[in-house]
Amino acid sequence: MTTRERIVRTAAELFASHGYHATGISEILTATELSRGAFYYHIDGKETLLFEICRTEIGKINAVAAKIALSDAPARDRMRAMARALVRNISDHHAEWAVFFSEFGALAGSRRAEILRARERYESYWSKVLREGTAKAEFAPLSAVHVKGILGMLNYTYLWINPAGELTPEQIADTFVDLLLEGIGKS
Amino acid sequence: MTTRERIVRTAAELFASHGYHATGISEILTATELSRGAFYYHIDGKETLLFEICRTEIGKINAVAAKIALSDAPARDRMRAMARALVRNISDHHAEWAVFFSEFGALAGSRRAEILRARERYESYWSKVLREGTAKAEFAPLSAVHVKGILGMLNYTYLWINPAGELTPEQIADTFVDLLLEGIGKS
Repeated sequence: MTTRERIVRTAAELFASHGYHATGISEILTATELSRGAFYYHIDGKETLLFEICRTEIGKINAVAAKIALSDAPARDRMRAMARALVRNISDHHAEWAVFFSEFGALAGSRRAEILRARERYESYWSKVLREGTAKAEFAPLSAVHVKGILGMLNYTYLWINPAGELTPEQIADTFVDLLLEGIGKS
Repeated sequence: MTTRERIVRTAAELFASHGYHATGISEILTATELSRGAFYYHIDGKETLLFEICRTEIGKINAVAAKIALSDAPARDRMRAMARALVRNISDHHAEWAVFFSEFGALAGSRRAEILRARERYESYWSKVLREGTAKAEFAPLSAVHVKGILGMLNYTYLWINPAGELTPEQIADTFVDLLLEGIGKS
């Protein structure tokens, strides 16, 4: 891990625990044991840390989702692989995702726009897979609300997932995908 | 609306727009056109506002959910009614729910514990309805992860719902309930 990566990681933990606005540079200096000069050599300020946290995580899941979404596997398999990758990432980078969902609003201007575009790109991979699944009669016809609902189910894990819990992130993702595919209703 | 309610409402808008930590009492005074003395006559500080925002909204949906969950209607109907009530409340009190989900972490001590208990109570109404639906063979067997997934789908609407959008909150809730009951998979 580079010093810059270590600063971003530490900032994610502090922002997740105490909130972005309530965390000062001095707390980050204490936690990283860096001098003010060393810190500013790597990072030009607190908003850059927030931006890096968001950009890194959404960048990682976009890279994975792009690969899966663009493959020619059945839509069901791609859906499952994307769900597993997302819940795994949320579990492994829990602080980062808590910051992403809770503190995104503190980003401004072109940085905010960049993260919003990345989120839309992520959603577009899901839309693509679901649309193709419908076209191949793997899935019922779906709307934008369905995409939001599916992503909500998965994203919301950041609020309750326990990385030390009984179920692996993949098992949680599978439970959701089975629920989404089969439904819970017995007719 | 009492002055106290007006202060809480205004604080919710400001916290939702600028973040809890970044909003000062002085901004609330400006927005409510109250003097410092008048403000402190009604509210003893910023954390009380956050607590009131959270407590009021979770209290409202708990009251509705209790009534629905304890009725003897079929589980499917209770599920739909609870989903509609939740998405309607999130849409009508959008700022309050954004604050609830994003800023809950700033509450401490007994207030934090009270809100957590209220959230658990809300979840318990869902668990009850789903468990009873399984017992009556309306639903497949369900786990705690299913409950979290269903609530995630519904709660996450706070991040994207547009109160002026094309679909009513009830239509969005119905789309989700149909998805959850029937699934999207075509076998």
